[in-house]
Amino acid sequence: MYKVDLNSDLGESFGRYTLGNDEKIISLISSANIACGFHASDPMVMDKTVSLAKKYGAGVGAHPGFPDLLGFGRRNMVLTPEEARNYVSYQIGALYGFCKSYGIELSHVKPHGALYNMAGKDPVLAEAICEGIARFDENIILLGLAGSELLKAAEKKGLASASEFFADRAYEEDGSLRNRKLEGSMVTDEEVSVKRIIQAVTQGTVAAYSGKEIPVKVDSICVHGDGEKALLFVEKTRKALEEEKIEILPLKDIVR
Amino acid sequence: MYKVDLNSDLGESFGRYTLGNDEKIISLISSANIACGFHASDPMVMDKTVSLAKKYGAGVGAHPGFPDLLGFGRRNMVLTPEEARNYVSYQIGALYGFCKSYGIELSHVKPHGALYNMAGKDPVLAEAICEGIARFDENIILLGLAGSELLKAAEKKGLASASEFFADRAYEEDGSLRNRKLEGSMVTDEEVSVKRIIQAVTQGTVAAYSGKEIPVKVDSICVHGDGEKALLFVEKTRKALEEEKIEILPLKDIVR
Amino acid sequence: MYKVDLNSDLGESFGRYTLGNDEKIISLISSANIACGFHASDPMVMDKTVSLAKKYGAGVGAHPGFPDLLGFGRRNMVLTPEEARNYVSYQIGALYGFCKSYGIELSHVKPHGALYNMAGKDPVLAEAICEGIARFDENIILLGLAGSELLKAAEKKGLASASEFFADRAYEEDGSLRNRKLEGSMVTDEEVSVKRIIQAVTQGTVAAYSGKEIPVKVDSICVHGDGEKALLFVEKTRKALEEEKIEILPLKDIVR
Amino acid sequence: MYKVDLNSDLGESFGRYTLGNDEKIISLISSANIACGFHASDPMVMDKTVSLAKKYGAGVGAHPGFPDLLGFGRRNMVLTPEEARNYVSYQIGALYGFCKSYGIELSHVKPHGALYNMAGKDPVLAEAICEGIARFDENIILLGLAGSELLKAAEKKGLASASEFFADRAYEEDGSLRNRKLEGSMVTDEEVSVKRIIQAVTQGTVAAYSGKEIPVKVDSICVHGDGEKALLFVEKTRKALEEEKIEILPLKDIVR
Repeated sequence: MYKVDLNSDLGESFGRYTLGNDEKIISLISSANIACGFHASDPMVMDKTVSLAKKYGAGVGAHPGFPDLLGFGRRNMVLTPEEARNYVSYQIGALYGFCKSYGIELSHVKPHGALYNMAGKDPVLAEAICEGIARFDENIILLGLAGSELLKAAEKKGLASASEFFADRAYEEDGSLRNRKLEGSMVTDEEVSVKRIIQAVTQGTVAAYSGKEIPVKVDSICVHGDGEKALLFVEKTRKALEEEKIEILPLKDIVR
Repeated sequence: MYKVDLNSDLGESFGRYTLGNDEKIISLISSANIACGFHASDPMVMDKTVSLAKKYGAGVGAHPGFPDLLGFGRRNMVLTPEEARNYVSYQIGALYGFCKSYGIELSHVKPHGALYNMAGKDPVLAEAICEGIARFDENIILLGLAGSELLKAAEKKGLASASEFFADRAYEEDGSLRNRKLEGSMVTDEEVSVKRIIQAVTQGTVAAYSGKEIPVKVDSICVHGDGEKALLFVEKTRKALEEEKIEILPLKDIVR
Repeated sequence: MYKVDLNSDLGESFGRYTLGNDEKIISLISSANIACGFHASDPMVMDKTVSLAKKYGAGVGAHPGFPDLLGFGRRNMVLTPEEARNYVSYQIGALYGFCKSYGIELSHVKPHGALYNMAGKDPVLAEAICEGIARFDENIILLGLAGSELLKAAEKKGLASASEFFADRAYEEDGSLRNRKLEGSMVTDEEVSVKRIIQAVTQGTVAAYSGKEIPVKVDSICVHGDGEKALLFVEKTRKALEEEKIEILPLKDIVR
Repeated sequence: MYKVDLNSDLGESFGRYTLGNDEKIISLISSANIACGFHASDPMVMDKTVSLAKKYGAGVGAHPGFPDLLGFGRRNMVLTPEEARNYVSYQIGALYGFCKSYGIELSHVKPHGALYNMAGKDPVLAEAICEGIARFDENIILLGLAGSELLKAAEKKGLASASEFFADRAYEEDGSLRNRKLEGSMVTDEEVSVKRIIQAVTQGTVAAYSGKEIPVKVDSICVHGDGEKALLFVEKTRKALEEEKIEILPLKDIVR
C-alpha cells in the first residue's frame, strides 16, 4: 500500500498580523513546518501552532529562515557557514522549547524561502544547515527538494531525509523546479495538480515541462496554507489520496 | 564546610558589538547566565558562550529578558502573563539548542534586568515566568533575589530555587535591595564587599543600611562581567572564599 | 458653516503582512496618520501610503509609536523623556523622507497606541513628545484627545493642536474616555455613533455614559481603517456630514 | 591651493553598545557619515552624533545600510530596486529629522558596507540609491568610490558626487580597490599611507599594487573612527595635510 506525507508551512503570523488558516490546514495535513521567529512567527504564535499540531496529531518540524522579518525570509542573504549553522541551532532550539512544553517530538526541519533555495544549490550552506540539525539531534529528518544539495548534505551528515513534491510547480527534465520567471513554471489547473500527485506517489514519475516522463521521489507533498483556495486544494488532494487508498502519514512513518 | 556559587551574566555581546570579558570571567565563576537574543546576544554569541562554559566547567543558565535589544532589557514593559510565559519558553529553548549541541545541561534560569525586577515584585508575572520554566523542565533551578516574588512563585510551581547575594548593593532591614536612587545604595569599597560576602556565606547575615544585622540566604553571589575592575573583584572574591575554605560549586551542587 | 476633519490610522502593514483597506479608506478621509516603522509599517508601506495620500488629497501626519513591532505599540513601555523625544524625531523624519520625495507637507503628528494613552496622562512624556515635534517643525499640529496632557503640552510648547472625537467610545462626565474594561465603554450601534458625531460637531456636546450632556471639542473624528465594517461606517459618517452641510477638511484647514 | 575633505563613518553605537571614539574623531574631520538605524545606530545615538557634528562644525551625511543590525550591514542582501530606493529615503529622512532639529544641513550620503560595495558594481542598485537621494533633495552630494557605478549613477541622476580615497587600501591598475582576500590588499605602514594621501591630493596619482602610477580623483579621504590607532592616524594625516598647506574642508566646499 502506498503512503505519503502532507506538509505545510504554518505558524507564519506575527504579533498583530495574521497569515493563513492554520487551524483548518493543520487538521488536514500530517506534518507542520513551523516558523521560528526569524523570517516570521513569534513566541505566542509558536505556542499556539505547536498546541494545534498536538491537538490534530500533525508531526512538528522547524521551519528556520534568514533573520529577515521585513523580507519574510525570501531575500537572498550571504551568511558564513558558521552563521547558518548557529541560526539553525537557535531556531530549532526555540521551537523545541514549545515541543518539550507540550510533550511532543520535533520530528523534522525544512528550511524556509531563500534559505531553502540557496541551500538547495550551495553544498557549503547545505552542510552548515545539516550540521546545525545533527548537532542538536541526529534523529531529526531533513525535508527538502529531491536531488538538491540539502538532501545530499543530509546524507553526508548521517541525517534521514525526505523528498517533497510540489504539485503546483513544473519540473525540468533533470528533476529541478522550472524557474518561476519562465513561462509555464506553475501548474494552475488543480485537477492536473491532483493527478500529478497521484501519479508521482503511485508510479514515481511526473511529466516534465518538455512532456517527457521523469522519475520523481515523493515522501511528502507540499501544500500551501494561505488563502481559501489553498484550503480547498488540500481537501481535494486528501480525497484523491483516500480514493487511491494512499495512506497519509507523518514524515517519521514515511522515512524511518 | 561552606559552599557557594558564583554567577555572572554573560554572552551579552551582539553582532559587531562586544560587551564584557566573557572568557576571563567564565574561567573564574561556577554559573553563567547566558543572554538568549531578546535583550542581548545572538546565535553566534550563544554558541561561543556555551562552548566557553563547557570548556571551563561553568554551569549554564538561561538569562531571558524583555524583547527590547534597543533598551538592553532594562526598561519596564507590560506583558500579559501568557506573553511572559511564552517569551521565557522561547528563550530557554533557544539556549537549550546550543546546550544540547554541546552535550551539556541547562541547569538554571535567571531573568534579566527589568524582567527580573518587575517579577521580583509582581506575583502574576513571577508565576508566568516559572510556568514557562516548569513546562520546559521541572528540574531547572530558578535563580533570583532572596524573598522575592520570583522565588515564591518557583516554590509554588515546584521548582528548586537559589537565592543570590549582591555584594555591591546595600540592603534594607526587610532584606530588599536599597533603591538605587537613594543615597548609599551601592557598596563601593571592594574590601567591604568581600567581607560582606564572607559574612553572608558563613554566618547568614549582612549589615543593613541602617546598621542592623539581618539574616540573608546566600546560595550564589552575583558578580559583574563587564570591565577590568569587575575581573579584579572576582579574583579577590575567589581568593577570599578560598582562604575561608568556602567551596565554589555550580548551582546544582548547591541547591539539590 | 460647520467643518470637521476625518482622521484614520493607516500604513500599518509590514513586509509580507497586510492590514487594513488603506486605499479605500484614504479616499474617504481628510487626514491620514501614517505609521513610521516602529510599531508597524516599513519603507515600502510608507512610500505607498504617502503616494496614496497625495493621490486622494488627504493630509499626511506621522503616527509614531513605541519601538515594539511585536506588540504593535500597544504595550506600555517606560522611556526616559529624552528617549521619547528622540524616537519621535526619528519617526517624524523618516516619514518626512517620503513626504519630501512626493512634494507634500507633513501636517500633523498623532502618537500611537500605548504611547498615545500614556502621554495622555503623563505630562513629562507628553512634553517630551511635543518637544520632538517642535524641534523638527513648529508648524506641525498635534492631534490628540481633548483635555489630555498631550494637548496641554502642545500648548506649552507653542504647537497648534487638534482635538479628536471617538464615535465608538463612551465618555465620562469629565470628558475622559470610559475605561475599556468597564461595561458600556463602547458605542456599538452605528446609527447612534453617527448621531453622536453630528451632535458633537454642530452643538459641541455629547451624552456622557451617565446620561448627562457634556461639552466636547471636536476638530477631527477618528475612524478605523481595518475591516469591511469600518469602511461602511466611514461612508455612513461622510453621508451624514454631507447631509448636515458639515464640510470635511484636512486638519490644517480646521485648526489654523 | 589644494583642498580635501576628511570623512569618517560615525554614530555606529547602538543602545547599550558603544563603538568608536566619536567625539574625538569628529573634532578632527570635516564630514561625518552618520548611521541611520538600519545597520547600526539608534535615535539616541543619532541625536548625540548630529549634535557633536554641529559642535565641531563637521558636515553631516547619511550613512544608510542594509536592514541587518545583526550583520552590521556587512552581508550581501538582494533587494529590489524599489526596496533599495525606499530604504534610502527612510534612512535619509530619519537622519534629517535630527539635522532639522539642530538647524543644520544634510550635505551628503555615503552608503554603508555591503550596500556600498554591491552598489559600486551594480548599476541598477546604484541608480535606485541615487533615485532615493534625488527624490529627497537634488542638492545632496553622493560620496563614493571613484569610478564606481555609484558615482556613474549619481551623474545620471544629476547629483553632485565626491570621490573618496582609501589611504589604507591597495589599488589595482584600473583604479579599483585590491580585493581584501588577496595578498597586499592593505597598506599597513602609516607613514606610507600618509605619503600616499599627500601624493593623491597634490598630484592626483597613486602607486597601484603593480607599482605603476595611476591617476586617482580625491575629493575626500576616508578615515576610520574605531580604535586608538585610528585616532592617531587621523592626527598624523591632519598634520601632514597642514604642513603641505592643503586645506581641510567639508564636502560641500570641495564639490560645489
